[in-house]
Amino acid sequence: MAKQEEVILLDFWPSMWGMRVRIALAEKGVSYDYREQDLRNKSQLLIEMNPVHKKIPVLIHNSKPICESSIIVEYIDEVWKEKAPLFPSDAYSKARARFWVDFIDKKVYHNGRILLYTPKGEEHEAARKEFMDSVKLLEGELGEKDYFGGESFGYVDAALIPLYAWLHAYETYGELKVEQECPKLIGWAKRCLEKKESVSSVLPESLKILAFVQQMRKRFGLDE
Amino acid sequence: MAKQEEVILLDFWPSMWGMRVRIALAEKGVSYDYREQDLRNKSQLLIEMNPVHKKIPVLIHNSKPICESSIIVEYIDEVWKEKAPLFPSDAYSKARARFWVDFIDKKVYHNGRILLYTPKGEEHEAARKEFMDSVKLLEGELGEKDYFGGESFGYVDAALIPLYAWLHAYETYGELKVEQECPKLIGWAKRCLEKKESVSSVLPESLKILAFVQQMRKRFGLDE
Repeated sequence: MAKQEEVILLDFWPSMWGMRVRIALAEKGVSYDYREQDLRNKSQLLIEMNPVHKKIPVLIHNSKPICESSIIVEYIDEVWKEKAPLFPSDAYSKARARFWVDFIDKKVYHNGRILLYTPKGEEHEAARKEFMDSVKLLEGELGEKDYFGGESFGYVDAALIPLYAWLHAYETYGELKVEQECPKLIGWAKRCLEKKESVSSVLPESLKILAFVQQMRKRFGLDE
Repeated sequence: MAKQEEVILLDFWPSMWGMRVRIALAEKGVSYDYREQDLRNKSQLLIEMNPVHKKIPVLIHNSKPICESSIIVEYIDEVWKEKAPLFPSDAYSKARARFWVDFIDKKVYHNGRILLYTPKGEEHEAARKEFMDSVKLLEGELGEKDYFGGESFGYVDAALIPLYAWLHAYETYGELKVEQECPKLIGWAKRCLEKKESVSSVLPESLKILAFVQQMRKRFGLDE
């Protein structure tokens, strides 16, 4: 029945959290109704579906909302389990994957935001250092593997690859050289884009993200 | 074989994150070697087992470390799945339980720390408001149920109940009246303590936590 598979995604195109959900849905081949949200003028639907945080992404599956991107991706993997498993099956590898996604959210994305939207100074410099330390740790965790998930694309890959669309902006405002310092990570990102349509179909162009960041910085009074 | 079940917990007695792991282990009836950590002089073992964050709790199961309390509890539930399941079986209820634990970590425990260890002022006042709003939301989520998990004690219960040991300290330094404003939550906490040995055997006395907080405040120069 059609109702059994009513899938709606409330999202905002540049969101790294939204992208990971869109990638997971693409991996599973789930069709959905994408509804772009205006975050400066939140829709009644968004407020009703995520009354606690009022944030995107929200997945609405048969009228039931699921919030918080990493929780949504776990949900997607459990519900559409036949195709493209995103998690390893043993409990220890699963815990490690969860550990790295939590790390990405706390260390990489958190510091990335500071790099883009705070003026230079102590806080910016501390974020710059922690951001680089964090991507280097991820470079080490990847090692010689094709994907963080090993031979196949998985949960950590889906969670981290949106970073690649933002990298040019981070490098610009953080004065970083991730491309030079983390060659394995860059190789992995290019591999994901080349081999996974779920990624190439979702990731926006770096210059589009840069233009978005420039617009936000003007709004925050950081640039003229 | 004995080696199959070598379980070590690196922990620190007042930790709310540590307590939730100890409660989960008690629910499952898992015996383990508890190793109290000195967080001002971190052990080589802690640094080796959690090189990324160097934080407790760390569960070491057959020489393999698992870090981050909510990830550890999920691991425990998956490995020792025969007894006392902490998660509901359907994907949607599981996602909701994860959502609330994430909320507890981000809103309740985060603001609780500010209440205890920052001087009065704007930040303290904002944390006070968000802390109360958050516990009221949890009161609403509990509703008329016996436990957050419904009829049986589960993941959200194990994650939130350590708060009760800290409540006296929060009420003291946050000038809050949680006991008066959230009668259902207090009823739930008392029920957990009365009916669950996993909880009563783990939670330290409120006055012991208060004394610990007083000592920390002196160390931070907040009190004489």
